[in-house]
Amino acid sequence: MSDRIANDLLRGKVMSADEAAQFIDNGDIVGMSGFTGAAYPKAIPTAIANRAKEAQSKGDEYKVDILTGASTAPDCDGVMAEAGAIRYRMPYQSDPTMRNAINAGEMKYQDIHLSHSGQQVEHGFFGKNIDVAVVEATRITEEGYLIPSSGVGNNVDYLDSARKIIIEVNEWQSLDLEGMADVYRIQHLPNRTPIPIINSGDRIGKTYIDIDIDKVVAVVETNAPDRNAPFKPIDDISKKIAGYFLDFLEGEVKAGRLAYDNYIMQSGVGNVPNAVMAGLLDSKFEKIEAYTEVIQDGMVDLIDAGKMTVASATSFSLSPEYAEKMNEEAKRYREHIILRPLQVSNHPEVIRRVGLISSNGMIEADIYGNINSTHVAGSRIMNGIGGSGDFTRNARISTFISPSDAKGGDISAIVPFASHIDHTEHDAMVVITEHGVADLRGLAPRDRVAKMIAVAHPDYRPLLEEYVERANAGKFQQTPHDLATALSFHQRFLETGSMKQN
Amino acid sequence: MSDRIANDLLRGKVMSADEAAQFIDNGDIVGMSGFTGAAYPKAIPTAIANRAKEAQSKGDEYKVDILTGASTAPDCDGVMAEAGAIRYRMPYQSDPTMRNAINAGEMKYQDIHLSHSGQQVEHGFFGKNIDVAVVEATRITEEGYLIPSSGVGNNVDYLDSARKIIIEVNEWQSLDLEGMADVYRIQHLPNRTPIPIINSGDRIGKTYIDIDIDKVVAVVETNAPDRNAPFKPIDDISKKIAGYFLDFLEGEVKAGRLAYDNYIMQSGVGNVPNAVMAGLLDSKFEKIEAYTEVIQDGMVDLIDAGKMTVASATSFSLSPEYAEKMNEEAKRYREHIILRPLQVSNHPEVIRRVGLISSNGMIEADIYGNINSTHVAGSRIMNGIGGSGDFTRNARISTFISPSDAKGGDISAIVPFASHIDHTEHDAMVVITEHGVADLRGLAPRDRVAKMIAVAHPDYRPLLEEYVERANAGKFQQTPHDLATALSFHQRFLETGSMKQN
Repeated sequence: MSDRIANDLLRGKVMSADEAAQFIDNGDIVGMSGFTGAAYPKAIPTAIANRAKEAQSKGDEYKVDILTGASTAPDCDGVMAEAGAIRYRMPYQSDPTMRNAINAGEMKYQDIHLSHSGQQVEHGFFGKNIDVAVVEATRITEEGYLIPSSGVGNNVDYLDSARKIIIEVNEWQSLDLEGMADVYRIQHLPNRTPIPIINSGDRIGKTYIDIDIDKVVAVVETNAPDRNAPFKPIDDISKKIAGYFLDFLEGEVKAGRLAYDNYIMQSGVGNVPNAVMAGLLDSKFEKIEAYTEVIQDGMVDLIDAGKMTVASATSFSLSPEYAEKMNEEAKRYREHIILRPLQVSNHPEVIRRVGLISSNGMIEADIYGNINSTHVAGSRIMNGIGGSGDFTRNARISTFISPSDAKGGDISAIVPFASHIDHTEHDAMVVITEHGVADLRGLAPRDRVAKMIAVAHPDYRPLLEEYVERANAGKFQQTPHDLATALSFHQRFLETGSMKQN
Repeated sequence: MSDRIANDLLRGKVMSADEAAQFIDNGDIVGMSGFTGAAYPKAIPTAIANRAKEAQSKGDEYKVDILTGASTAPDCDGVMAEAGAIRYRMPYQSDPTMRNAINAGEMKYQDIHLSHSGQQVEHGFFGKNIDVAVVEATRITEEGYLIPSSGVGNNVDYLDSARKIIIEVNEWQSLDLEGMADVYRIQHLPNRTPIPIINSGDRIGKTYIDIDIDKVVAVVETNAPDRNAPFKPIDDISKKIAGYFLDFLEGEVKAGRLAYDNYIMQSGVGNVPNAVMAGLLDSKFEKIEAYTEVIQDGMVDLIDAGKMTVASATSFSLSPEYAEKMNEEAKRYREHIILRPLQVSNHPEVIRRVGLISSNGMIEADIYGNINSTHVAGSRIMNGIGGSGDFTRNARISTFISPSDAKGGDISAIVPFASHIDHTEHDAMVVITEHGVADLRGLAPRDRVAKMIAVAHPDYRPLLEEYVERANAGKFQQTPHDLATALSFHQRFLETGSMKQN
């Protein structure tokens, strides 16, 4: 047995994943660790999938509700979705198999602001208690407390709420991660007090999660890596967008609204953000801080280059290569990296206080600056809103960065009317594509239109201008629309496979 | 001269409104006091309107940008809009003349989350400084500080930012209002600290606004009432909606998620909220607190009945009768009422901390729970989002309360696809009409549909069900839509004057 389990009572609970999964009943609400391919349980999900398949083979039903921090990985969301083991899933996912099951109507998915997710459990929206918490840890202390592995997510909320706890102790996770987590419990209503974070780098909590060890029904030993996708090499489009983003930051410095040493970054995950971080390496910006959701390769590079002093997040989203490096050098990185509970990393209180500049991707924006982050053509979910709402609404400046088209040009990222809205015209301040920066601040809706069309792909500009002409012919001029053709780009895409006209 | 001006320097600056308006140049950005018909300047707006008319008569241009706390009144927004004196207006308005000017394209209007509005000035989105602040006060102290009148709004932000200050001292406002305001300055970036409000009733600031008196260019004496519209008598529909809202609260108590003595209220303005407050008078709820934006008649009644212990807001929205009462008995009411700067009354930090239940009106909701608060048929603005986003996003439970139809049945409040979205499906938790409660918490989009149709007006249910059938026939089942007919209710309304089919 692993010496990572220092508590005697819990050593007595070690068993196989299949045995442990017997504690998870059909219909249970299960809160799992896991956030962007890090810190998710590696063994129980497969055991749940097997229970579902076995039940199905006998004509029985076995389905559970799965709550996590955010997305997980093929050996978690993927295997459970493939087995049809999930009835309901929240608050975020990005697994291809699961996405298909959701869009086929085979399982329910509620896409929730990440900062709301743990709080909704605390407030009893999912019942007085959830049934089971399944949480990965690096090790268990003598007292039976958990040292978080590569992410914290909603673990505290789920462990506090669950009637039963299953712990996975993953030997792959470096013991040197200990000290990276800063576990602070937001007090329950009506006794809440201010969260005492003033600066991104403030540590306000403990390095472990204290749990009620009497609730632990099983401990499972694993030795399996986190699974995040490698980033693609930075392409020309991403480089151009990053260039415009850096120009925008420089403009803010020129305008006296930002200094070279007080850029606080929040960044969504992906190739464009990675290009931005690569660009920052050669920029005049110094002492960059991140108050964000996930630590990405680019931030590790910025830390190594001495450009970033501290990165606060709730989890890692590293390429396999960087995940290895993090494991090997966790002792060094934990001087610069803090992993917080999701309720703290994404809390409006702290986000608004530190004054960060948010950058998130999008599927589409409309000509007035409403943003669709989640659905293709209104109905087909891709991933989810994640924390983009938490950061966008509370940022000092909110930006959306995206290529101006997708699917080889068949989808325009700028449309007349967004087919789903996740961030409203009241929230999006700046939209950046490879064609430039649309700075919408201080502008009435009609004055945003020309700026949005200027960052659209040139192939789509004439179509957008034709739409604006039709819309402006209407009677009401605050937010002119021609409702008959407002969704025509999307209708064309569904009918012909392209938003372009033949 | 009024003995309400105790500072010698400022006594020397007393002049007529027309003289004072000479300090406001064409093209200036002017930050005004004023919030829902209270505390707006009573004289300068007419003087601005006169300057604009005079300039126009000579063929010159005279237009200014007007920033306020929120809506004002006919003798403020109304006269300036009528004179064509405004180029750009933010963050909220509700004046009929102004609304028409906006929808006719004659002036620009940016509809901004109220909690963002002062902050955007502070962050320099409107330039390093705004040009002029025009602020009503009850009196000026010996030091030259301002005792706020019936609202605080963005006064601190505008007074701090402005290069020139014009003060209106309004003798109509009761001197006993002194002590009601709690003026706390949120520190500027990067030095922000937690806002030390734990409970709705906590006082954390000063009773006056300290200003740089060297910036004062004029003091104008006025004696004019605030102007809010009287409430209509409570009608049957409002009573029914209020009944369902109270049932909902009772249900939360039964579920263990609320106690009779910890309901913290936020409420939009209007007849339905007033009916809810009347209902609360006879309910089991005690020690009710309000952490909200404006004090309404119903809250005054709850205070008088000993049901509400404290109401925290930024301003008053009282009927003429209640405004008189407030003026007469301000000394008594100031034990129970706190008026805070808008940045504090609407701050996500405090809203999320106190754990309130928000209730706001709406124009329409779609079958998945996206809410349109602002635009009729996508283009025509009514008022604006106001603080509804600040409260909805950060409430412990967010509710929207509205009659199920409008315009004598020609507009349905439940539609297939919202024609403008101000609160997304991620934010709206509960929708209540005179037909019941649609509790959307914990539900995937498809599971919300039947609940939303059940609260729609019966005349529209068959049309909505037909839409759902068409939508569900599509390929993608997360948020099924039939884009060709998604906006058909609105198109029909624009074409025929009714969303109903002939």
